[in-house]
Amino acid sequence: MEGDGVMDLLLTYDVDTTSAKGARRLRRVAKLCEGYGLRVQKSVFEIVTDEADLLRLLARIDDIIDAERDSIRIYRLPHNGLADVQTLGIAQVQSHRDDLVL
Amino acid sequence: MEGDGVMDLLLTYDVDTTSAKGARRLRRVAKLCEGYGLRVQKSVFEIVTDEADLLRLLARIDDIIDAERDSIRIYRLPHNGLADVQTLGIAQVQSHRDDLVL
Repeated sequence: MEGDGVMDLLLTYDVDTTSAKGARRLRRVAKLCEGYGLRVQKSVFEIVTDEADLLRLLARIDDIIDAERDSIRIYRLPHNGLADVQTLGIAQVQSHRDDLVL
Repeated sequence: MEGDGVMDLLLTYDVDTTSAKGARRLRRVAKLCEGYGLRVQKSVFEIVTDEADLLRLLARIDDIIDAERDSIRIYRLPHNGLADVQTLGIAQVQSHRDDLVL
């Protein structure tokens, strides 16, 4: 158990990347999110952070996106839920925490 | 509490929709997933189902996707986790269960 308030989150970003401006917004949001976790699909980010940093991240994302066109959704997963993902195709489970050395 | 093994899941599908075949695969996967839940972004689906139906859904998706190009990720959320999503922009929280009438 972690006692430091760290949460496993999934952030999904729906943006029209056929427009140059939309593609640029996705690049900027991706760069931000990669500071907090991993980009696992083009517009899906696995994030491990605490409440205070999440609020900071969301404020910065809110400054980037077009609030009348884009959609951001943030889901809270169970503790260590990012390790419990099922995958098909080329998707892989990725580690956010140091693995135990056995 | 539900005792029927129903789970809140999030399914994300990364597929190149600039190709006609990729766009067709997304349409087919979307049609399938909409039988189990809601399409909340172009390639993000909120699903409420039990273990047996999930396995059936995944088998059917596996028949549609290109396993060498596409990525499917399925995350398990906490009980009623789909009601707990945070949103920015045009995203809205959507109800999967009948609301209580107070």
